[in-house]
Amino acid sequence: MLGSTYGTLTTHSRPARVAACGEHGRAVVHGLSSPAGTGDVDVSGRPLHAPVPDLARFFRPEAMAVVGASDSEGKPNTGITRRLLDWAERVGARLHPVNPGRPTVFGLPCLPSVADLPEPVDLAVLLVADPLPVIEELAESKVKFAVAFASGFAETGEEGAAAQARLAAAVRRSGLRLLGPNTNLNAFEEFREDLEGPAIALITQSGHQGRPVFALQELGIRLSHWAPTGNEADLETADFISYFATRPEVGAIAAYMEGLKDGRGFLLAADRAAREKVPVVAVKVGRTETGARTAASHTGKLTGADEVVDAAMRQFGVIRVDGLDELQDTAALLARARPPKARGVAVYSISGGTGAHFADLAAAAGLPLPVLSDGKQAELHQWIPDYLSVANPVDSGGHPVGDWRGRKIIDAILADPEVGVLICPITGPFPPMSDRLAQDLVDAAEASDKQVCAVWGSPVGTEDAYRKTLLGSSRVATFRTFANCVTAVRAYLDHHRFAAGYRSPFEDAPRTLSPSARKARGLLRTGEQLSEHAAKQLLRAYGIRVPREQLVTSAAAAVRAAGLVGYPVVMKASAAQLAHKTELGLVKVGLTSASQVRDAYRELTEIARYEGIQLDGVLVCQMIERGVEMVVGVTHDSLFGPTVTVGLGGVLVEVLRDSAVRVPPFGEDQARAMLGELRGHALLEGARGAPPADVDALVEVVLRVQRMALELGDGLAELDINPLVVLPRGQGAVALDALALCR
Amino acid sequence: MLGSTYGTLTTHSRPARVAACGEHGRAVVHGLSSPAGTGDVDVSGRPLHAPVPDLARFFRPEAMAVVGASDSEGKPNTGITRRLLDWAERVGARLHPVNPGRPTVFGLPCLPSVADLPEPVDLAVLLVADPLPVIEELAESKVKFAVAFASGFAETGEEGAAAQARLAAAVRRSGLRLLGPNTNLNAFEEFREDLEGPAIALITQSGHQGRPVFALQELGIRLSHWAPTGNEADLETADFISYFATRPEVGAIAAYMEGLKDGRGFLLAADRAAREKVPVVAVKVGRTETGARTAASHTGKLTGADEVVDAAMRQFGVIRVDGLDELQDTAALLARARPPKARGVAVYSISGGTGAHFADLAAAAGLPLPVLSDGKQAELHQWIPDYLSVANPVDSGGHPVGDWRGRKIIDAILADPEVGVLICPITGPFPPMSDRLAQDLVDAAEASDKQVCAVWGSPVGTEDAYRKTLLGSSRVATFRTFANCVTAVRAYLDHHRFAAGYRSPFEDAPRTLSPSARKARGLLRTGEQLSEHAAKQLLRAYGIRVPREQLVTSAAAAVRAAGLVGYPVVMKASAAQLAHKTELGLVKVGLTSASQVRDAYRELTEIARYEGIQLDGVLVCQMIERGVEMVVGVTHDSLFGPTVTVGLGGVLVEVLRDSAVRVPPFGEDQARAMLGELRGHALLEGARGAPPADVDALVEVVLRVQRMALELGDGLAELDINPLVVLPRGQGAVALDALALCR
Repeated sequence: MLGSTYGTLTTHSRPARVAACGEHGRAVVHGLSSPAGTGDVDVSGRPLHAPVPDLARFFRPEAMAVVGASDSEGKPNTGITRRLLDWAERVGARLHPVNPGRPTVFGLPCLPSVADLPEPVDLAVLLVADPLPVIEELAESKVKFAVAFASGFAETGEEGAAAQARLAAAVRRSGLRLLGPNTNLNAFEEFREDLEGPAIALITQSGHQGRPVFALQELGIRLSHWAPTGNEADLETADFISYFATRPEVGAIAAYMEGLKDGRGFLLAADRAAREKVPVVAVKVGRTETGARTAASHTGKLTGADEVVDAAMRQFGVIRVDGLDELQDTAALLARARPPKARGVAVYSISGGTGAHFADLAAAAGLPLPVLSDGKQAELHQWIPDYLSVANPVDSGGHPVGDWRGRKIIDAILADPEVGVLICPITGPFPPMSDRLAQDLVDAAEASDKQVCAVWGSPVGTEDAYRKTLLGSSRVATFRTFANCVTAVRAYLDHHRFAAGYRSPFEDAPRTLSPSARKARGLLRTGEQLSEHAAKQLLRAYGIRVPREQLVTSAAAAVRAAGLVGYPVVMKASAAQLAHKTELGLVKVGLTSASQVRDAYRELTEIARYEGIQLDGVLVCQMIERGVEMVVGVTHDSLFGPTVTVGLGGVLVEVLRDSAVRVPPFGEDQARAMLGELRGHALLEGARGAPPADVDALVEVVLRVQRMALELGDGLAELDINPLVVLPRGQGAVALDALALCR
Repeated sequence: MLGSTYGTLTTHSRPARVAACGEHGRAVVHGLSSPAGTGDVDVSGRPLHAPVPDLARFFRPEAMAVVGASDSEGKPNTGITRRLLDWAERVGARLHPVNPGRPTVFGLPCLPSVADLPEPVDLAVLLVADPLPVIEELAESKVKFAVAFASGFAETGEEGAAAQARLAAAVRRSGLRLLGPNTNLNAFEEFREDLEGPAIALITQSGHQGRPVFALQELGIRLSHWAPTGNEADLETADFISYFATRPEVGAIAAYMEGLKDGRGFLLAADRAAREKVPVVAVKVGRTETGARTAASHTGKLTGADEVVDAAMRQFGVIRVDGLDELQDTAALLARARPPKARGVAVYSISGGTGAHFADLAAAAGLPLPVLSDGKQAELHQWIPDYLSVANPVDSGGHPVGDWRGRKIIDAILADPEVGVLICPITGPFPPMSDRLAQDLVDAAEASDKQVCAVWGSPVGTEDAYRKTLLGSSRVATFRTFANCVTAVRAYLDHHRFAAGYRSPFEDAPRTLSPSARKARGLLRTGEQLSEHAAKQLLRAYGIRVPREQLVTSAAAAVRAAGLVGYPVVMKASAAQLAHKTELGLVKVGLTSASQVRDAYRELTEIARYEGIQLDGVLVCQMIERGVEMVVGVTHDSLFGPTVTVGLGGVLVEVLRDSAVRVPPFGEDQARAMLGELRGHALLEGARGAPPADVDALVEVVLRVQRMALELGDGLAELDINPLVVLPRGQGAVALDALALCR
């Protein structure tokens, strides 16, 4: 039944060449114009590929101009010019001040305009209040990149948004790429060059919010880039995700986001990172209405419906965290850790209490803590007293860590084939033990291909065992709290499982209309809510089963229909724009005889007349009783367009809002994952003595609804199949009622 | 209807004097024997009061003995003796070494036995492997307190548990109070004397787990005591909670717990702290089976059913947190903060992004962030540019904090009558701004009676603005993460609301049996599951409504009964030990005529005969259709005894386990709070077009069930009213079926 992840409705030609970059290594689409594949769109008209901008010369220009440069004391631009000069000197870029008002700036010849630049420059930093007039000059001078510091655009309200739109239009015409406006110097900070190994690349929509991640360098963690995206009139978070994902030095991308410029662009960037197996860890504001409102007033972006953003991130493996501390700790672990050799986590501590507490939090977060084998436990008991538990967590009792046994214990745990991660929580400094323990952890980690994590729980944080020993090693991931360690390790295991099994849904996204779509389009009525009968025809067009039913316009026809449909039957009034049928008394169930059918027909038409409802007839439907009631629907999100929702029916969806959502395109794996997210999921497995439900059929309905949502696009504003009765396994699923709203 | 919090079943005499300590100030029950009120028990035989042990001389002995003292190089006891000597000297205690093997220890005369001590001592530290024989000697010498370091007791298994039981018995006979065994020196650490203001008192069941809280002193936060309770053969966590709650220098109690020795003892201690308005913040291991198992193997205590422990804590205002970092931060805020002047929280930041992000997390945690008045916003806009939002969060944009305006802004926010707490998250050091901002926060806080909180988000943590300025003030609560600040402020507001409204449920707990109990006890059958009819009589005895019903033993009687009960009726087989009636076909609903009743009678008795069930008759019951189906029950917890559960019926309780539990005694407020905890709570308010349910009647049933649980005690092993149909408001609640299991 599930022939392809998009159902078996139709065939569509697979493109011979899916993307400019295949599975083999990382590649960048050079040049800034659209690559060959970019014209490729799915059936809804949304792009299936996004170019990866080559931003190498943005971050490391050979020559650059500073427009509005100054060396007059007291002017804000003077400080900025000074810092840019220092930075250019450090990275070996040639800097040209531009300012019509002065002959030199800080001793360098100052040019009156961009046109007078002595050489082509890669980057122009615009310190002028209105960057708009400069954009065309820059284009003529073949400048590739510009950064606009000026504020007063979309973040200030409507007028500013209009100015920003004009700026964006000028940039599009010019062919250059702009960062900003309302941004800052963060891209040109001093990055430590002495740190080695994979780095974190940072993207933030607020300078202050990136500062703690940038400061990780002071703890020995390498940063390669910082993109402060500001108002994103042109270059946006998605561009930087795509670019960083293709850079060999980048181990993880850390992002702080207040809003997204474009939903599809973000998905394509996240897809790029997933293909490249580069983890993206992100804080995204907007969990609450308060947060969303405040964020919008900050950079003037849409925050989107949070549950949809959340789902989109999960679909593409973006790891969402709540705090900047979690962002730091999770990105640092993911950037530097090698893929896990095993999924098991071992907790090792010098205190039974610490082990118990950590294991409790780890188990609650779903970390797998395998019980160590009898052989391994016996091995550990060579060095650890017998009365202490070494099953996992391993409690050394303290003393063995003070001598040669300490290292033996760590090595023995790391050698266990079930163990991929060793975590050692240390609650405080007790130098005779903790200094040696820290050193043993570092030595063991350097000698092992397993991941070692330490938690330094002292709130003081100035101890040498922490600052020098633990932070001195890039092979030990060091945390300050149990919770952040658990969060990061969970993300680490999840990311590698996700990346190993990732298949881009864009590869399979439908490009051409199915025959279903042509049939379905004929049923849409602009601006109308379809009658139940018409909505069910829409479903039928997509191969979604509806009850046997007939639309009749006389009592005699109703009786004939009931005979064909089979008793017992349900009868319902059918009309466009009709909602709340049950409340109005316009549904009759369990009719078992011709006389009941005749009575029901009369009653329904009388109520309709009384209520002034123009019926297109009465539906005589097969009655379906057994099964789990579900709800499947389509709604439109301001950022992502059509989204597909599935939920448990009845009281569960109405009172508990127990539903899951996905952003197309998604495959069968995600449709199944949706069901797993439902709190009442056990109902599908056959709770309360019921037989297990036909989950395959439900998944197929979800995928067909996705196809419908993509193919009908904006024409279908909303679809709500409620209820979809999922019958016992092997018997399918039937849409008993549906509401369809056309745009 | 709700005459008293225990229903209107009976009257019981209120004790003239409820507790040794009234509402007026803190008092300690001096002496170690039971005070007058201690014999007071509730109707279940559980104590209504616990003495507060006077532990002043334990923590600050004037004279002490060290049994097993040593100064031989290389012996572990030598190090301990040395540290105790240093400590005794520092606090001015006279220390007497005891050891039959040597004439002096570190130059002090060493006595051969406790009997030879030159003066009565308050405290004996036992460094011997087997403390048991010493206990009697100590009792004879009138020693008040002992600490036993030895391990190898309950934490090692059955044999050790037996040894611990013998030790506990000896201690009980002796009249002294023992800390340990399996404990350490933490009570005799070096506490900083230079710190002022209310202190944290610390209780831990693991030395290592207390270390980070103790280390808070290095950040300027005062600690007054540390009780490392070890195996709790005698003195337990509850004793220290009670004692600390009565100490004037203690602002908050921080506890790390792996298990509880006795449920009721813990409740009484928490009640003591609640009466004294001293907050208790606790980490309690046992969220997961892994954690519970590991904790049990560490100190040999019961962890209890976690949801019951969790409920008990909430009932008595104990603030449960997950991490040691949360324990530190929450206890530090609660210890030092004055009661809030208002419930509103204002977020103030130099970055719109930071404000948006913090506000998002704060709102998600339920912190009240009032929108500032137009007048206040206008006032703030004197110093803050108009395009920045100052509604709350307040975004200063940065520049104003660099001069005199910074302090003005903070003062203006603090002066707002709706604002009780100002939170300023600072994501990183930018000395021109952050140094002055930190100083302004401190200055403003010192001048205000409102609470000021800062978050220093830099992961480095060595900056002066953090270490010197912020940590230098006891009026600013400084955090390192947004999340911990939000958690602590939430606990702060919750604690003060809880403490202000607290009324001890022990004051109203029933002391004498109600007439209901005498009737009910006659219905219990040891070891049996009662028939539905008998279980309903039990409910009826407690004034809980059941449907009109009759137990009949002939078809003719069934028809007569149906006439009396009123059609339509439900008929059910009734027998002891009968479960799964519906599945067996032993329930017939919706019977509307005498012939249907006759048929049903025949059918039910035939099925029973076929299944070999010995019926005590057939129940003919009134049929009740409208209403919300709930479940109310009683189960027994290993730590707390009978507990009362309420849940939503049907699929909600079966698939989602949507229920809430409480430990008696509890009042009407808690019964109502239980309903608020249900995820499907909206069903009671009249979801899906239904009328609101009779919540008062439901609350009354919960309280009557509590009374039943207390009065029947162990005789009633389990009660399950399922369903209890709650009718529309004013119409009551009816128990349609009940299962009662006697012990």
